Amino acid sequence: MKLSDKALADFREQGFVFLPELFSRAEAALLLAEARNIYASDREEVWRESSGVARTAFAAHTYNEAHKRLGAHPRLIEPVMQILEEQVYMHQYKINAKAAFDGDVWQWHQDYGTWQRDDAMPEPRAFNIALFLEDVTPANGPLLFIPKSHTVGVLDAGHDLETTSYPLWTLDRETVTRLAKTGGVEAPVGPAGSVVMFHGNLVHASPANISPMDRTIVYLSLCAVSNHIRAFKRKEWIAHRDFTPIRPMGDDCLDDLLPNQAA
Amino acid sequence: MKLSDKALADFREQGFVFLPELFSRAEAALLLAEARNIYASDREEVWRESSGVARTAFAAHTYNEAHKRLGAHPRLIEPVMQILEEQVYMHQYKINAKAAFDGDVWQWHQDYGTWQRDDAMPEPRAFNIALFLEDVTPANGPLLFIPKSHTVGVLDAGHDLETTSYPLWTLDRETVTRLAKTGGVEAPVGPAGSVVMFHGNLVHASPANISPMDRTIVYLSLCAVSNHIRAFKRKEWIAHRDFTPIRPMGDDCLDDLLPNQAA
Repeated sequence: MKLSDKALADFREQGFVFLPELFSRAEAALLLAEARNIYASDREEVWRESSGVARTAFAAHTYNEAHKRLGAHPRLIEPVMQILEEQVYMHQYKINAKAAFDGDVWQWHQDYGTWQRDDAMPEPRAFNIALFLEDVTPANGPLLFIPKSHTVGVLDAGHDLETTSYPLWTLDRETVTRLAKTGGVEAPVGPAGSVVMFHGNLVHASPANISPMDRTIVYLSLCAVSNHIRAFKRKEWIAHRDFTPIRPMGDDCLDDLLPNQAA
Repeated sequence: MKLSDKALADFREQGFVFLPELFSRAEAALLLAEARNIYASDREEVWRESSGVARTAFAAHTYNEAHKRLGAHPRLIEPVMQILEEQVYMHQYKINAKAAFDGDVWQWHQDYGTWQRDDAMPEPRAFNIALFLEDVTPANGPLLFIPKSHTVGVLDAGHDLETTSYPLWTLDRETVTRLAKTGGVEAPVGPAGSVVMFHGNLVHASPANISPMDRTIVYLSLCAVSNHIRAFKRKEWIAHRDFTPIRPMGDDCLDDLLPNQAA
């Protein structure tokens, strides 16, 4: 799996690239069913909204077979290796629920801002790659990106401990407004199985989900091995300390877990 | 201005019809500038979010020249007359701001539910017609509709006096979920000047606007004259009592207010 020259150029200029339907509906459905099992379990890695529904599950690649394979899937790992020109390890793995009606906002932020401040990651040589496990529409809390904002470095941020159940380094309104004057705001929407890859410094957010449709997305945060974190303040299952290079599996690695194949 | 057969069929089947770029950018910009003047004024017709920014301004067609003309604009009035096969009067006129960062949610509701309960409007022979004064995108709190939900009559609702600054008869989650299983959820998005016409019983909502872009929309609620309201519990500038049929003006009625024309 290699990105095309067009996709590479998009990523470098805009800070993200959208790859609709990179996974099949069946693959997405399998991973969604496993995510729901995880949300229903009583694990410390599952964080909840104030209403009690799941908000995010961390580190599922360490305790769930389907997600373990996704964490080494060539369609996700190889494009990041291609751009970083280096082997990568898993810095963070999370499944964000954004549940119907209850899924709350994620304020405007840069992920690398957190990785630098909390984890002492040396450089923004780490990207996110997001796989939609359900259709993402304008109605159910889509990801919002400010194109080109990955070029401005790490921005000043405040540590928001109050808005939601998840602490986050968030940007102020003046900064967000200024960046959007240049780049606008884009919301990649598409069917389950679609993928967005975005730079660690790209400014993004997502609104609350007031719709009756759930909106589950898996995020792999992949970091160049030489750029591994230096500080270990956060839980190991939030900011991993296993810097072993990921060896991509085969493109069909999920096939034998699909219901039709198993039958 | 007449709706095409396709648009008529959409309206009857889906409960709404989207008419992109029905007004020019210049017309939208004029009406937006006037809306901002109104928001900046200290009138009782302007309701505010808890943060203090404007949420909605009522009855601008009674005290602002540009909005007075929009309230008789043939591109808005004639399609409603065409469907209702009768003359119409202005039941409500409001400019909803959905300000950048501060614009709050409108929960799931039917407008006719309020008109029936609060104003004793006999039948759902009244439609909304919404004109986007700014670009509406997935990022800035678009209107969300449940297609086909206008066919189910007036649904049970609870009177929400707490969520926002505007009291509203809102639907419960079970009802919204059930209707969306049939109709899905649609979010018409498009540039300033676009119009959505929707049935008084169509279930709709809009999420908070967390983006740095404002999202101002004018709503005309037009009612068949014979179907005028019977109860006068709400303020006259919220639920009008002047049942005079609107005489559509000319299609160019905003032209001499446009900056280029006036110069």
